[in-house]
Amino acid sequence: MSTLPTSVVGLDAEMSALLGDGWRTDASERLAYAYDNSRRQSLPDAVALPTTREQVVALVRACRAHGVPVVARGRGTNTTGAAVPVAAGVVVSFERMNRIVDIRPGDRCAVVEPGVLNGDLQAALKAHGLFWPPDPTSAGYSTVGGNLACNAGGPRAVKYGASRDNVLALTAVTGTGELIHCGTATTKGATGYDLQRLLVGSEGTLALIVEASLRLTPAPKARRALRAIYRDVSSAAQAVARLMAQPVTPSMLEFMDADAVRLARDVGGADLPHEAGALLMVEADGDAQTLPHDIEALMRAAEGDGLIAIDDAADEAAREKLWAARKALSPSLRTLAPGKINEDVVVPVSRIPQLVDGVQALSREFALPIVCFGHAGNGNLHVNLLYDPADASQNERAHAAMGRVFALTLSLGGTLSGEHGIGLAKREFMPQAIDAPTLTMMRAVKAAFDPDGILNPGKLLPDE
Amino acid sequence: MSTLPTSVVGLDAEMSALLGDGWRTDASERLAYAYDNSRRQSLPDAVALPTTREQVVALVRACRAHGVPVVARGRGTNTTGAAVPVAAGVVVSFERMNRIVDIRPGDRCAVVEPGVLNGDLQAALKAHGLFWPPDPTSAGYSTVGGNLACNAGGPRAVKYGASRDNVLALTAVTGTGELIHCGTATTKGATGYDLQRLLVGSEGTLALIVEASLRLTPAPKARRALRAIYRDVSSAAQAVARLMAQPVTPSMLEFMDADAVRLARDVGGADLPHEAGALLMVEADGDAQTLPHDIEALMRAAEGDGLIAIDDAADEAAREKLWAARKALSPSLRTLAPGKINEDVVVPVSRIPQLVDGVQALSREFALPIVCFGHAGNGNLHVNLLYDPADASQNERAHAAMGRVFALTLSLGGTLSGEHGIGLAKREFMPQAIDAPTLTMMRAVKAAFDPDGILNPGKLLPDE
Repeated sequence: MSTLPTSVVGLDAEMSALLGDGWRTDASERLAYAYDNSRRQSLPDAVALPTTREQVVALVRACRAHGVPVVARGRGTNTTGAAVPVAAGVVVSFERMNRIVDIRPGDRCAVVEPGVLNGDLQAALKAHGLFWPPDPTSAGYSTVGGNLACNAGGPRAVKYGASRDNVLALTAVTGTGELIHCGTATTKGATGYDLQRLLVGSEGTLALIVEASLRLTPAPKARRALRAIYRDVSSAAQAVARLMAQPVTPSMLEFMDADAVRLARDVGGADLPHEAGALLMVEADGDAQTLPHDIEALMRAAEGDGLIAIDDAADEAAREKLWAARKALSPSLRTLAPGKINEDVVVPVSRIPQLVDGVQALSREFALPIVCFGHAGNGNLHVNLLYDPADASQNERAHAAMGRVFALTLSLGGTLSGEHGIGLAKREFMPQAIDAPTLTMMRAVKAAFDPDGILNPGKLLPDE
Repeated sequence: MSTLPTSVVGLDAEMSALLGDGWRTDASERLAYAYDNSRRQSLPDAVALPTTREQVVALVRACRAHGVPVVARGRGTNTTGAAVPVAAGVVVSFERMNRIVDIRPGDRCAVVEPGVLNGDLQAALKAHGLFWPPDPTSAGYSTVGGNLACNAGGPRAVKYGASRDNVLALTAVTGTGELIHCGTATTKGATGYDLQRLLVGSEGTLALIVEASLRLTPAPKARRALRAIYRDVSSAAQAVARLMAQPVTPSMLEFMDADAVRLARDVGGADLPHEAGALLMVEADGDAQTLPHDIEALMRAAEGDGLIAIDDAADEAAREKLWAARKALSPSLRTLAPGKINEDVVVPVSRIPQLVDGVQALSREFALPIVCFGHAGNGNLHVNLLYDPADASQNERAHAAMGRVFALTLSLGGTLSGEHGIGLAKREFMPQAIDAPTLTMMRAVKAAFDPDGILNPGKLLPDE
């Protein structure tokens, strides 16, 4: 083929034989795998659609022999550029490895290929009264492999944990093309090094996951929501600390700052009082019989200084109505500015007021709207910086402000990301978050798994 | 000093200056740190009792320069020999680094030095209505650092997880004497590689933990126990699967096989029927108001084919009485034989019947009593092989039988250890449990943290 990129000329015959129509080098196909939800873009030299782990092993070995980068891809829903092939090479899309291999209800375990959609898995588990806890917004169209690679979370993580907390064992292909089996499909294990949790969140830089044994949880039979409105962020944050310090762990605990409340009201049409300075959505799940008691306990914890109003959604329709304010939020952000930088920093729960206050000060300093909302029970706030990318001054201010948001977060004992990961977007900030000896150790771990640096180069770790 | 072992001659002056009376080379002191609860013994060349992380850094660097092994030690309660200095060198006991640095109830976080006793931490947390979930039998006299190094669990792990599930961040000293900071004291994080969970369970072979930020859980206000007696193991195991498949996760779910029940009755004096073929102790914890509903749900799940009797302990005195059968067990084992090999294998919950059946067949084949009990909700059974170590034939049979127990466990999709770890005791079985490419990967990770192999040599990984 005349358009074949030079780098994959040496691979082409072997990969065509290995993968058949699962080896793609034409420009239009390459373009379709060049981007992710970060809106960054970089053309790969080829796309591979393997159907078996043996093909992945052969592919990685061939790429290693030819010094060609290998970039694993789920469905490209991540927001950090982790799936963008910035050094070109071969994108390995797992869309054809999408079987649910086994569901074992008695063992609370499902075995899946990486390309299974999170939503398809949940649908299959429903019949068994089970679910897999990670629930990113993208759940309907993101893959389990992608969720694991990025340690995806979601609102439910406050009670049930993120992806890393819900994996038992992984089969993966390292940068040397070795197939490794990490962990066991049991809920306890103390047999050597825990490589499976190390692979979770490593964004395809250590190994390619080809099978996962997932830890499942019995589905709660009922759920019920509260909406608590506070005078100010500090009152709401104190309520978060009270909610997290008592034994009934909420199944969701979402926060909205004053700007977010205003947007939800003025643009989204949500029924919210004008004096609202912050809002918490609190949800509990469990047995229909015990839920009223749990909701009572959460209500007691939500009450305190600065509470303006608290509403208890007695049924599913009322619940939907309460959540409407939260759902109205993301679309209404677009009314403020055409561009948005959405980062998902984390601070200890007790530091939420300082984070929100500090972000508001940055909003004034840089003369740009910044709206905060997110998973308060984990201190995981989505900081949305709104600007016009076409305006050079705004563009520059937005990126300068975001750097300051990271610095503020770190000064409060927090970290750069709770569930989106690092990818391309935050790697330049890694040396602020992680000290030099620890970064050196991470590089040594990377070299142990991928001595030639062919797996997703240019991601997660900063340049040396 | 005339008795100074040759290997530490080069270190002696520097370490005396660094550690003062925290540097011990006399024979009696060395003897006191030569053993652990595995009853294995090997004399170290010196003992170090550091009080600061800086001392640990200097010590490891000096040991590395002189090629001297470094063996971290909590209180030596582990059963696998992980703390025995088989290659001599310096034992680093963390008994003087035992401060609780900070308790932050609003963040559900405690920061501790590694030498804090688990029990002392729990006592300090009680005032805040919090606890740290790992509850090994040794909790009163084992250290948090030791618990983390071995990924200690306990009965509560079925609901609250083991040590690895309850750590947020670790500060540690690698084999090159670098101080690294892994993780953040937040309950969510997707910032680079998860080195902190990798260090948990690594038995001092990757780094020495000098500070830990622990994830705390609000203490339940009430608890209540059930005892269910079954005709046979299979009926009990099916009940375990039913109990784990419904939404009320028990806070403990302990199993006893027929021999264990018989011992508890005949030797321990517990009130148990003669036809009992297996027993489950089930406990729930939570709010006093919701607990009756939870217990009802557990009772319903416990009911089924093969159930002989079920007792609900309505108050704490009745609870203690029910637990008496379980507590009578360990002492009564000694009436069967003077020697005991206690291994803590894990299988998927659904495979418990095959494990117990297979172990009973091995007991007949090798003509030695084997008693199984343990943490059924995690499939983590303690297999107690009873024999007379002074009898050469029994000794040989006991060890041969144990190898077969491991092979059986692995054939059922299980693993060698749930909470005791590998240490010296099981390392020769690692190649059966973990395939060659994965072991090679573990060795590469070890080399990344400890390139000269000075940290706890001869443990966890088998000889090449």
